[in-house]
Amino acid sequence: MTSAQRKSFGSDNHAGAHPAVLTALAAANIGDATAYGDDPLTEEVTTRLCAEFGAAAAFFVFGGTAANVLGLGLMLRPFEAVICAESAHLNGDECGAAERVLGSKLLTVPAPGGKLTPDLIASQLAGRGNSHRAQPRAVEIAQATEVGTVYTLDELRAISEFCRASDLLLYVDGARLANAAAYLDCTLADLAAHADVLSFGGTKNGAMGAEAVIVMNEPLAAAMPFQRMQLMQLASKMRFLAAQFGALLDGDLWLANARHSNAMAARLADGVAGVPGFRLAHPVEANAVFGVLRRDQVRALQREWNFHVWAGEGAEESVTRWMTAFDTTPADVDAFATAIRATAPLPSQPVF
Amino acid sequence: MTSAQRKSFGSDNHAGAHPAVLTALAAANIGDATAYGDDPLTEEVTTRLCAEFGAAAAFFVFGGTAANVLGLGLMLRPFEAVICAESAHLNGDECGAAERVLGSKLLTVPAPGGKLTPDLIASQLAGRGNSHRAQPRAVEIAQATEVGTVYTLDELRAISEFCRASDLLLYVDGARLANAAAYLDCTLADLAAHADVLSFGGTKNGAMGAEAVIVMNEPLAAAMPFQRMQLMQLASKMRFLAAQFGALLDGDLWLANARHSNAMAARLADGVAGVPGFRLAHPVEANAVFGVLRRDQVRALQREWNFHVWAGEGAEESVTRWMTAFDTTPADVDAFATAIRATAPLPSQPVF
Amino acid sequence: MTSAQRKSFGSDNHAGAHPAVLTALAAANIGDATAYGDDPLTEEVTTRLCAEFGAAAAFFVFGGTAANVLGLGLMLRPFEAVICAESAHLNGDECGAAERVLGSKLLTVPAPGGKLTPDLIASQLAGRGNSHRAQPRAVEIAQATEVGTVYTLDELRAISEFCRASDLLLYVDGARLANAAAYLDCTLADLAAHADVLSFGGTKNGAMGAEAVIVMNEPLAAAMPFQRMQLMQLASKMRFLAAQFGALLDGDLWLANARHSNAMAARLADGVAGVPGFRLAHPVEANAVFGVLRRDQVRALQREWNFHVWAGEGAEESVTRWMTAFDTTPADVDAFATAIRATAPLPSQPVF
Amino acid sequence: MTSAQRKSFGSDNHAGAHPAVLTALAAANIGDATAYGDDPLTEEVTTRLCAEFGAAAAFFVFGGTAANVLGLGLMLRPFEAVICAESAHLNGDECGAAERVLGSKLLTVPAPGGKLTPDLIASQLAGRGNSHRAQPRAVEIAQATEVGTVYTLDELRAISEFCRASDLLLYVDGARLANAAAYLDCTLADLAAHADVLSFGGTKNGAMGAEAVIVMNEPLAAAMPFQRMQLMQLASKMRFLAAQFGALLDGDLWLANARHSNAMAARLADGVAGVPGFRLAHPVEANAVFGVLRRDQVRALQREWNFHVWAGEGAEESVTRWMTAFDTTPADVDAFATAIRATAPLPSQPVF
Repeated sequence: MTSAQRKSFGSDNHAGAHPAVLTALAAANIGDATAYGDDPLTEEVTTRLCAEFGAAAAFFVFGGTAANVLGLGLMLRPFEAVICAESAHLNGDECGAAERVLGSKLLTVPAPGGKLTPDLIASQLAGRGNSHRAQPRAVEIAQATEVGTVYTLDELRAISEFCRASDLLLYVDGARLANAAAYLDCTLADLAAHADVLSFGGTKNGAMGAEAVIVMNEPLAAAMPFQRMQLMQLASKMRFLAAQFGALLDGDLWLANARHSNAMAARLADGVAGVPGFRLAHPVEANAVFGVLRRDQVRALQREWNFHVWAGEGAEESVTRWMTAFDTTPADVDAFATAIRATAPLPSQPVF
Repeated sequence: MTSAQRKSFGSDNHAGAHPAVLTALAAANIGDATAYGDDPLTEEVTTRLCAEFGAAAAFFVFGGTAANVLGLGLMLRPFEAVICAESAHLNGDECGAAERVLGSKLLTVPAPGGKLTPDLIASQLAGRGNSHRAQPRAVEIAQATEVGTVYTLDELRAISEFCRASDLLLYVDGARLANAAAYLDCTLADLAAHADVLSFGGTKNGAMGAEAVIVMNEPLAAAMPFQRMQLMQLASKMRFLAAQFGALLDGDLWLANARHSNAMAARLADGVAGVPGFRLAHPVEANAVFGVLRRDQVRALQREWNFHVWAGEGAEESVTRWMTAFDTTPADVDAFATAIRATAPLPSQPVF
Repeated sequence: MTSAQRKSFGSDNHAGAHPAVLTALAAANIGDATAYGDDPLTEEVTTRLCAEFGAAAAFFVFGGTAANVLGLGLMLRPFEAVICAESAHLNGDECGAAERVLGSKLLTVPAPGGKLTPDLIASQLAGRGNSHRAQPRAVEIAQATEVGTVYTLDELRAISEFCRASDLLLYVDGARLANAAAYLDCTLADLAAHADVLSFGGTKNGAMGAEAVIVMNEPLAAAMPFQRMQLMQLASKMRFLAAQFGALLDGDLWLANARHSNAMAARLADGVAGVPGFRLAHPVEANAVFGVLRRDQVRALQREWNFHVWAGEGAEESVTRWMTAFDTTPADVDAFATAIRATAPLPSQPVF
Repeated sequence: MTSAQRKSFGSDNHAGAHPAVLTALAAANIGDATAYGDDPLTEEVTTRLCAEFGAAAAFFVFGGTAANVLGLGLMLRPFEAVICAESAHLNGDECGAAERVLGSKLLTVPAPGGKLTPDLIASQLAGRGNSHRAQPRAVEIAQATEVGTVYTLDELRAISEFCRASDLLLYVDGARLANAAAYLDCTLADLAAHADVLSFGGTKNGAMGAEAVIVMNEPLAAAMPFQRMQLMQLASKMRFLAAQFGALLDGDLWLANARHSNAMAARLADGVAGVPGFRLAHPVEANAVFGVLRRDQVRALQREWNFHVWAGEGAEESVTRWMTAFDTTPADVDAFATAIRATAPLPSQPVF
């Protein structure tokens, strides 16, 4: 399905690591370092992350599912539930990790454009105080969302105010937080101010494999060291997770990477705009383009290009996802756009 | 407690990564790779690992606790228990991960030299068939053990035969399996033949952070892909875990590293042998020396040297642990041995 | 909200125990009995239950949620999921017990009339083999359903055949299985033949508090003794759970109770049929009537009568649930029907 | 192994229910009652229990394991551990329920006479603050203990003061709390004053099957309604659990039952005192006698009498347990004592 010659639009984690990350790993490799995070580099990068976010504490973990589960785990007892979009990665793509590891129920709600709203959240509160119902305690949103949309700061504020007024804690899945900040042209602290706990994804931003859990609500942080060990997320050679984030923070590489991948997605959307019969399934805000393609287009394109069918696999028309990464080039984008244009319009339709 | 100038004897994970591992990471970084392990490098290294072990399947995970929990997780339902040494890392150093994640009880037994025997295992079988007791189903041993001892192949065979005859499955925590193979001068397959599932530790052997779960008993492997995702151990950029093991397998680097660290431990033990009043707490077989020191010696040495007090913290005499790594040099060892010798004999004893 | 003078239509568990159950408890109270089910009465009643269902094994537990969780627990590993109706008691009324206790995800699907179909089940199978998705392994249906409807034997057969063909196990929540059998005029074995595991509810049928888990698929039964103890459902004085089921089996009291409560629901539906503006939300098949009432009717009636607002609490119109029990009398029904009729039509509407 | 003609000394739960309990169940059976505890009888008996214990809240559950797990569940996050005696019922007889349901590790310590002391508790605190260790948070003791001994009020005070000074919560397994109060001639409130949460066992005291979780530390109670439902311990016809405790509280029946069973144990111990070669394994304080018997005695006696071999099954000498209940008569005791005396002395020893 993929071609070695073609840049993958399958996922932003098909990309490798940014060269600066490799350089930072090599630099961090000199000499000994006490294990499990009790080393100067981990301390330094953690401090920088906290400053960047205005956070009480930051903790490195191995992956995005872990960040979500451990972040939510700071907030929940097992009879407490998480309100989230039906389309949330947490709900549909983590093999039931939250349910198994936390014991908590997810209260899912269909969310247009992948975004929760105060009203959608409110719709899940009916069971409060009823011992037969899992008790809503946390709200989970993704920024950017699974479909590449971004909550505006006003939308975030409305949700966080609703949560505070409703005795709900807010967790933000920030696997692509950098892309959201780049799109909104705001700081990470601007985004974080609305959350109790959030994740900051390194992996899709150019790291080799590293995520951070950022705790804004200080008392929630105390459980993390023990929870992280018990849930198998404490790196022994922690300096190598810290080094990756150090590289992303240096000179705001995280922002440059995010801006670039967002720009590539926008270029791709532009490149296919106006193609007869083509339409976007979602607005292009972060580094994803969701384009609706006919079955014959999907088949033709997937012979050479790597991308996912997001919805409607095998149907006459399906929603396909094209992700860009920090290392996607304009030439990659233009070649893909050209290929897409070449599949339209339908051969059987008159083109004049 | 540590000194930047002095090689740490605190742990084999205080060392960084072997240069060949960094080189392999850089090589793996070229181009795109499908995520979550569906890439050629992961396939290749997995195949090589299976060949090395004579295994049915191999899976990469992030850390040693995860390897233990996921390995045991292939064998157990929550009402089934694990028989292990009281001194097992699984029991004392993983923050209750097995209990929480698997729901399983550990049936612990004091084990001289950190080693279980068929008799010790048999002592834990009384509750079989009694619904009030967690049901013994798996046996967990570490090779090498927490105290640096190594099961001989005969000892392993006796345990595995007992397990098979007793309807018990055998899991081997191989965080330092390389050191055991080096000590016994046997292959990894020789060790693995006795296990149903085992781990193969990369991190302490020179990797940056990577462990493998090796499945010998084929039907047990089917659950792993799902379990690994649900338990937050599926790397998105998997090629970078694979690359580390690729480097360790190339030219048997794993073996060279293990032989070297074992040799450094032996040199250290030799270096302090015969010091008046000094004794070893355990035989030196893998890459650890457990030396009994007086409180004043511990205090004096820890001003410059990094090592752990293993037992008897603060007591008149305590057991201390000195670990060597792939990058410990003879000069490091000799300097440390000299320092230890300088603290002995007791100041109050006549030295002539 | 309730009146001591009025029979409750709030739930079939507002009723007490059938007198025969009390008599059986007194009879079982004579002399000693070995604890935890190792007594002759438990053996005898278990044997009778197995004969009645054509079952491999039967186990008593304390409550309906426990029956569901333990029944499903025989089928599932934590990464395996349960397909069920969104309206399932398991999903909405058990405080997330399945998720917490089993670690399993529920894959919920909107089900008209509370009933799953092969097509609805099939709609949840897309993620099979994808490690990012909890793996569908069991299907859960309720017989009768939460909304008082009953699967026909043909519907059950279609589901069970689909399950077998699709490598899915079928669990039937039989909290009101007796009512379903009475409605269909079939045997318990006719119903059970389609299930791998099912529950048989005693409590709503006239017991004081006892449910049975019936295992049709023999190999699944082996784990139950241990699971039941570990999940806190092993009664020490088990004879008193057995005695309750003994009383229900004697002379088919379970069937008489179910027929009676079904008849009372039918009588109630008849009693309000034709009231201007009134309609049923669901067909009346078991012992529940779901009637749509205006807000003013609900308020007026709940001053004297106990029933639940099922959906639309506080709205202009809401769905209300009226349950009948083994001890509901025709006079109770007629009085309630008269009261309902007296609240209709709308005061503001001309009645002539 | 048992004889229908002989009173069982196998367990205090081999006895049936006290007649007053049956009478109370019949009285509670009149009319309807709202389910799940929202009924007047549950409210009344709960209030009486709280008054008796000086408690903040009381909750009924089905069994003793559930009481322990749910009581501890109010105190613990999964990375927090319970310090308990190795001989605790929680550790050895509940099939790993605490580990599975709470995810928590048990830190067990050999406890002479089944009793913890501040020193024994202190021995388990070394790992505090170390993220590799499950964090000690609760202490669990049984009153009376598994071996029939009773903590004095001074011993309880010492433990509770140590716990408060050490930031540990104290849970008391009171499956036989009534026997302890009877032995100490103190009130239930005297015992409860030292605990944060405790259980009060009805079943072994003459109930049919009912236990109460008593919460002294008020903030801990808030989670119970949800936890009880999620953990499958919420009775739908709750009035029948309440009624059992109502009967035990009426006229202090609980105390009379406990005094009687204690007296029967004392009488039994007296009845075998002075038998040549016989000795007690533990002092007789509550309603258990632990007598050391030779293998031939065990075999001879178990032909007619029901009692457990507690330790040393099959050995030359073993510790046997003889339990008395509220309905054990002096004649039962005397017959058993006579039988025991008849098996001694050793046939090979001269008797004159």
